[in-house]
Order: sequence, then C-alpha cells, then structure tokens
Amino acid sequence: MKSWSIGILAFAGTFCYGQKQDSVMLRKIYTEALKHAQCYANLDYLCNKIGGRLAGSPQAQQAVEWSFRTMKNSGADSVFMQECLVPHWVRGGKEIGQIRSTKSTDDKDRRLEVEAVKICALGGSVATPWEGILADVLEVQGVDELYKLGAEKIKGKIVFFNRPFDNSEIDPFNAYGKAVDQRWKGPSIAAKFGAVATVCRSMTTLINDVPHTGSMQYLDSIPEKIPACAISTWAAERLSSLLKSSAEPVQFYLNMSCQTLPDEKSCNVVAELKGWEHPEKIIVVGGHLDSWETGDGAQDDGAGVVQSIEVIRILKALGIKPRFTIRAVAFINEENGLRGGLKYGELAAKNKEQHVLAIETDRGGFTPRGFTFSGSAEQRKKLFKWKPLFEPYGVYDFTGKGGGGDISPLEKQGVPLMELYPDPQRYFDYHHTADDTFKSVNKRELEMGAATLAAMVYLVSEHGF
Amino acid sequence: MKSWSIGILAFAGTFCYGQKQDSVMLRKIYTEALKHAQCYANLDYLCNKIGGRLAGSPQAQQAVEWSFRTMKNSGADSVFMQECLVPHWVRGGKEIGQIRSTKSTDDKDRRLEVEAVKICALGGSVATPWEGILADVLEVQGVDELYKLGAEKIKGKIVFFNRPFDNSEIDPFNAYGKAVDQRWKGPSIAAKFGAVATVCRSMTTLINDVPHTGSMQYLDSIPEKIPACAISTWAAERLSSLLKSSAEPVQFYLNMSCQTLPDEKSCNVVAELKGWEHPEKIIVVGGHLDSWETGDGAQDDGAGVVQSIEVIRILKALGIKPRFTIRAVAFINEENGLRGGLKYGELAAKNKEQHVLAIETDRGGFTPRGFTFSGSAEQRKKLFKWKPLFEPYGVYDFTGKGGGGDISPLEKQGVPLMELYPDPQRYFDYHHTADDTFKSVNKRELEMGAATLAAMVYLVSEHGF
Repeated sequence: MKSWSIGILAFAGTFCYGQKQDSVMLRKIYTEALKHAQCYANLDYLCNKIGGRLAGSPQAQQAVEWSFRTMKNSGADSVFMQECLVPHWVRGGKEIGQIRSTKSTDDKDRRLEVEAVKICALGGSVATPWEGILADVLEVQGVDELYKLGAEKIKGKIVFFNRPFDNSEIDPFNAYGKAVDQRWKGPSIAAKFGAVATVCRSMTTLINDVPHTGSMQYLDSIPEKIPACAISTWAAERLSSLLKSSAEPVQFYLNMSCQTLPDEKSCNVVAELKGWEHPEKIIVVGGHLDSWETGDGAQDDGAGVVQSIEVIRILKALGIKPRFTIRAVAFINEENGLRGGLKYGELAAKNKEQHVLAIETDRGGFTPRGFTFSGSAEQRKKLFKWKPLFEPYGVYDFTGKGGGGDISPLEKQGVPLMELYPDPQRYFDYHHTADDTFKSVNKRELEMGAATLAAMVYLVSEHGF
Repeated sequence: MKSWSIGILAFAGTFCYGQKQDSVMLRKIYTEALKHAQCYANLDYLCNKIGGRLAGSPQAQQAVEWSFRTMKNSGADSVFMQECLVPHWVRGGKEIGQIRSTKSTDDKDRRLEVEAVKICALGGSVATPWEGILADVLEVQGVDELYKLGAEKIKGKIVFFNRPFDNSEIDPFNAYGKAVDQRWKGPSIAAKFGAVATVCRSMTTLINDVPHTGSMQYLDSIPEKIPACAISTWAAERLSSLLKSSAEPVQFYLNMSCQTLPDEKSCNVVAELKGWEHPEKIIVVGGHLDSWETGDGAQDDGAGVVQSIEVIRILKALGIKPRFTIRAVAFINEENGLRGGLKYGELAAKNKEQHVLAIETDRGGFTPRGFTFSGSAEQRKKLFKWKPLFEPYGVYDFTGKGGGGDISPLEKQGVPLMELYPDPQRYFDYHHTADDTFKSVNKRELEMGAATLAAMVYLVSEHGF
C-alpha cells in the first residue's frame, strides 16, 4: 500500500515537474514574442512595400523573394522553394457598376435614374463584352431559389444574390459558411438557367459601402461562363429596396475587363529548423502568401505568414533545439486555386515525409483564443491536457473542428491538423477588401498569435502528438 | 433508497431545466444585441456629434442631455439625474514642447538643435509662465529614484519619467498599473525636491508619436505646483537617446496654458427598470460619460455608457420583466475627480438603497472575455456555476479581481462588484489620446459586450446573488 502511494506521488511529481518546465518555457516564448518579435515589422514591409499579391502577379513574385530573405534572417537552418504552376487572373481596368431605375411620380416626370455603385469582379470571373451588360435584375435569396424559379424567369436576367449574413451567429465564420455558396456556385447555377450575369451581396457582417471580392467556380457543365461581381452590402440594400418599391423593372449595368491569362510558375517557400532527435519527423506551421489585390493582404493572410516565420525566430532566439523538424511555410495561391497547398501535400506523399502535425494560421492576426483541431480522440485528449498551460495567455478554446485549406491535402495522409483560432469578430470587416491593410492589424494581437503558435509547436516537439 | 434517488433525479432535473431556460434566454439576449442593438449608432452620435467631454465642459453638459434622451428612448421606466459638483480643468491654447540639444561635431560647428515634440498637459496640471519653462532634463526610471537622487541633483531641473510599459505583461492593464505612478504622483514628488516641471513618457504598449494625457495629483504637502506634461513614447525614446549620447546638457522647453476654473454643476444620469418582485433591490450597471478632450472618448468610456443603456433596451425589447430593479448609470467625472461615482455611493448610503450587485464597464468596447469580481466566496461560487452559460459566447474568464472606479464607493457598503473584462490588447493604443475615436470601436465587439452585460444582469435578477 505504501509503495503504491509513493509510486503515485512520484508519478504526480514527474507530471507536475514536466508541466512546470513547460509552463516556464511558454512564459519565455510569450515574453520573447511581446518584447522582441519581428512579425509586425515584417508585415509592414509585406503590406506596404509589396502590397496585394494575387498568384501569378509580379507582387506575388516579390513576396516569394521577400519570404526567402525573411526566413533566412529568422535563423532557419535552411530555406527552400516548392515550385508549382498557379492560375493567373487579372482584374483589368476600373470596374463600372450602375443601378438603373425609373423615377415616375407621374407620367410627365417619368425619367431614368442612374446610380453608380462600386463593384468588384469575383476572382476567376470572365469579363463583360466591352460595352458592358445591361439587364433586368432578379433578386434571389440563394442558389436553391433558382431551381424553383426555373429558366423561364431567369433567362436574360442579371441574378442578384442577396441572402445576408446571419449576424446572430456568434462566430462570423459560421455566417460566412452559410452565405458563401451564393458567391462560389451562384454564377454557375444562374448560367445554367440562362442568366447573363450575377451580382452578389458582399460577404460581411457590416452594412457599409465596401465591396468584398473572393473566388467563384465555373462548373464544366454550364453552357456559357457569365460575368460575376460583388456589390457592397449598402448597395445591395439599396438595390433590393428599389426592386421592392419600383413598379417598373430595375436594371443593373456592369462593365469589367478581368481575364484569366496562362498559368504562371510560382512556389511555396519553406523554412526549416532541423530536429536534433528525429529530423525525419516534421511539424509544419504555415499561412498563405498570396492575397487579393483589392487590399494589401494584411489580415488575409500576411498575418499568418509573418506569424509562421516568427515561430522559427522565437525558437531560435530562445535557443530551443526542437526534437522534431519544424517547418514554416508560406503557401502560394490559397485564394484562387490552392495549388501551393496541393503541391505541398503531393510532395509530402511523394517523399514519404512523416508529418507529426500541420498547423495553419489563416483567420487574421487577432487575439488568439484557441485552436481548432482534426485528428484522433487520443490526440484531442493530449490537447486538452495542455489547455491549462495556455490559459494564462487567454487561450481557452480547444473545442473547434478542422484545419485550414492549405494543409487540408495532408489529412488524407493521416496527418492531424490544427488551425489557430483568433477572435473572429472583426475578420469580415476586412476580408477580401480594400480595407485589409497593415493598419487593421494590432501589434500585440499579432504577437500573441505568433507566441501561441510557437508554444504549440514547442509542446508537440517536446512531447510528441 | 429509491425515493432518495428519485429526489436526486428530480433535483438534477430542476437544475437542468433551470440552466436550460437560462441558456435559451441568453441565446435570445445575444441575438437581440447582434441583430438590433442601438449601442453602435448611439456611440456614433456621442463621439461624432458631441465629441470629447471633460467634466465641466459644455460638451459634458450636452452629453448629460443626450444620455437623458437616449435612456428615455431605450424604454426605461424612469430616468433621473444625480446632481454633483465637478472640477473644471481646461487645456487652454496649443501646447508647445521642444527638445534642445547641442550639436557639436567639433567646436567650429557647434550649434543649438531644436526639435519640436508633441506634448499634452496632464489633467489638473498648472500652466507654465507665459514664456514657458526651459531647463536641463534629468531622466529617471521612476518615483523612487528621486528619493535616491535627492534635492541637490533635482533642483531646477525638468524631471523626465521614462520607465516604459513592461510589454511582457499579458494584460496591458497590469503594465499600466506598474507604470502609472510616474504620471499620477511623479509631479508632486519631483516638486518636493525642487524640480521646475515634469515630462512623462506616455502610458502605452506602443512606440509611436501619440501623447497620452491622464490625471495627476498635487499633494497638499508640496511647496509649489509645477507643470506636468506627457510626451509620446517615440519622443521619449528620442529624448533618452540624446541624453545618453550628448556630452552637454539636454534641455526641454514646454509651454502650456491649462488652468483649473471654479467647480461646475453636473450630474450622473440614471435609467431605471423597476423590479416587479423586489423593486427595492437594485442591480446597477454603468460606465462613465466624461472623457478627455484629446479624442472623442469612444473606448474610454463612451462604449461603457452605450453598453449600459443597451442593457435596458435589450431587456425591454425581449419583454423580460426583471425581479429586481435594474439601473443603467452614466457616471460623470471619472477621469479627473470621481465625483459622480462618489455621489452615487453617497446617495445609495443616505437613501439606504439595497444594491444586490454593481457592474462597471470601463475597459473599452472590445470582445468580452469575462468578468472581474469582488465579493464573497459564496458569490464567486455562484458566478462559476454560471460560467458554462457564457462559454458559448467566448466568455470564459471569471478569475479576475476588482470592480471599477465609479462603483468602488459601494464596496464599503458591502455591495459585490464586477467589471466587464474585454480583450485588453488594444486598449492602450487609444487610451487618453486623439486616437480614441468612434472608428476604433468595432460594432460586433461592442454589441457582444452589451449582450454579456445584459446576460449577467438577467441571471442575477432571476436567481439573486
């Protein structure tokens, strides 16, 4: 009986000692980040010297070169590229959008009213003819409604997708998930029924005059690719109210010169710290380097890239020698193709790499609240055991599911995935807009996120996963 | 045995049913806030139509009248004022600050270098003489250092308090707590040793060129009141580096025309929803109406005022009839006197009011993370029991201690105190500066805070405390 209790005590002692050491190291990691991080200065350069950088653009190429240099400077043992082909879509000249309605208090005063509204082409859209497209507007609340209406009512129209975000969702990413099919597959379904173009309400919790771009997909089965744009939520409300109040048809005019050029060569950039004990086992943390060119790609996802590089810098600065190999990856082409993420997964399979864990950071540089996770129940248990280590830093939430897009190809290879979960409330104020600039990122919030990533990488490297 | 287990089950059933009902009601409260809140529009008016509003100013008076109207519109059963006298300090004309150093590469090229730096008088400071004050600068790392240096080294000097924020603190409010004595009592201690003025490094986590004002106190015991100002952290770094590198004395020049006028009449504004069962028992929630005039007082503390009013609106909109009386208070003069908070406490004692709980919201309109609390162990237990009800809304942290300044006079009367604990990372980017404007507040974050306050008020009113 006695030896049994001593055994228990010894075990508890070891456990506590281990936790204590970890907690001391986490404290060092957060202090290093909050006092000496370079991620904010790095983000400043990426956003303000390079700016928006859609895959295939000269800015994306500059960003690749910048990543290489910055990773070298972070103290990585080695930095290398993973080449891949990326789509090359360009927005072209200034886009024009107009709402045309009939003002008719009485027959004598009857006249056309033209209101200019900001539009932005959805990524991947075809251009309009040079003279633009003018047609009657048909407002719908979603893709399903098109099937109910049928070709007769849709043919020749501009379909206006206007289902708003459900703002009662506590996490706006859930509201996004419930609305984004309108942007992604709306144009294809509308084309199927003979629509001539689509206009999509912007994906945001706010009502303001900032249009949000984003990807769309043309299904192979459609008769013809039709132009697709987004309008601001303010303009969407205006258009909808005119459609309700006007006895005569309301028309929309759009003119866009976007086009898809031939694929370009580009690459992921990978920094590596070699593991001293198991160099063959890899923990990867990454964000995506490309961004929409409407803004500077600060929250989406410059933040994730500079945080991932910062993980390397922090480990190096603290003299932490990781047992496993640590990789920071700047993925290319997340926004409109995922070719970088796919290439990473392809090479991991081809080279039979052993990934212990893949972590993504692509939800903005806001205060970290936790991690989402996809993996085994055993691993989830381990994660929960580490929760008390993170709580002093306000990082409480380990309940969410899923990783991110760029690391998703690794899931098939049995790799557990995580994503940093920052506070989500402000994300859709900036997402895919001209407002996604450096000044929207808070220095301490960004640094706290980098520290939280470094802490997770450290724990997994120390204890396995 | 059987009846005992049935008893347990019945109890568990009641408990679960109660928790279930509460969780349904909290969901309604958050939905109401996120879909229909008026707090953001109210804050827009307060910041952009009225603006900065130091106690005693015409803007403060406008804000009192605005509060009265807005509280009426929120659906309160009654709105009333609590009159009190407030100090009336005014900043006066444009403040001038200069660093004067000697540039001397060699004797022939020796010349005076004058660099203009932004300063702002600390609240309550006396003016300089009309011609300003020019004197040698003595840099110190805190108030204690003055005692070590003694009068001989301090007499005739401008004391420059330059101990920075400890950015390794996870909660910047702790860094503030560790640095703010330099601003608050630094001028008095410096005056005691014969200094002619003080310059204080701004209270912020950032290095930028925005000076932060804030209160200071002249002790009765000092021989003479000396002028006290703040400089930006950027200017503080500059001044410090010149002091280190310059062989000759570095001087500072300041010119300020601030003054304290006779006390003015002002008031707290109080909205009330009468309790149907115990109208004599009161739950109070409040923020402060006054703000520094350097900005628009959006985060500090327009946010708290509009959130408190929103609590009333939400309860009313949902048809919740509270068992206890609910009060929303716009306190006056928190920034430089606390006369409103003191008056509220005085009247509560005089009228033998029974306060069940007092909640303050004065830490900015950021995503709510929890509540701080001061009260009995029994009450803390109750609070922890409610934690699972808040977790779906990202509100996890109930471990912090303390209430806020305005409700602190109630503590002596045995009233338990709470303060809403929003995410603290961005607060000292704005605090007491020209950057504390409406656009620094995020709509959803503000609304989430209002909902969290309403949820707590609801639970305490339903279940007692």
